[in-house]
Amino acid sequence: MTISVPQNIFSNIPTELPEELFETLHRQGNIQVERIISKGQHTPKHEWYDQPQDEWVLLLKGQAELEFSEPSSIQRLMEGDYLLIPAHVKHRVAWTPDDSETIWLAIHIFPNERL
Amino acid sequence: MTISVPQNIFSNIPTELPEELFETLHRQGNIQVERIISKGQHTPKHEWYDQPQDEWVLLLKGQAELEFSEPSSIQRLMEGDYLLIPAHVKHRVAWTPDDSETIWLAIHIFPNERL
Repeated sequence: MTISVPQNIFSNIPTELPEELFETLHRQGNIQVERIISKGQHTPKHEWYDQPQDEWVLLLKGQAELEFSEPSSIQRLMEGDYLLIPAHVKHRVAWTPDDSETIWLAIHIFPNERL
Repeated sequence: MTISVPQNIFSNIPTELPEELFETLHRQGNIQVERIISKGQHTPKHEWYDQPQDEWVLLLKGQAELEFSEPSSIQRLMEGDYLLIPAHVKHRVAWTPDDSETIWLAIHIFPNERL
């Protein structure tokens, strides 16, 4: 079996990021590994992600604020911070800095096979 | 549901690392997310990992050389490099620097539920 050449998670970052950039790095069975790049974007006010899947996120670079609805709280994330966002826990990205990229690694763990 | 407080993947690093340190950060279904810290360790010569699970690895900090047996090759990994090591692809850690920590994130994707 041929081994794939390593790729770098900090490369191929567009200079302009009018929207958040979501890229699937690996997909297998019920798992999706994703890179997310933010630059000043945030989820619109009063809009919430309400996902069927668990999401394990690691902030690789930059900073962010994650907001949760119940109980209402805001988590400030710095480089290296990680946490699990369980399925159907309503959350939104409240803030990312607009002067540099924020890079996230997200592991989506779906309840069922999706391939 | 209570959201867990974020933890930091670059914290709680022991000052002494006589052996590689493996820590499970998250385990769910057939998935295990692991932090591995190396400091000069390598897999003994002529010993190979031959795993039943796929392993997606991301080098978060430091450097490493991964060796594969068939075809014989060595991959130098730098910060941010990631690759998939498919199940039963024989590999070993050929080198990590001994003067600073190398921190890996590994996602093990087992063929079957293991909880």
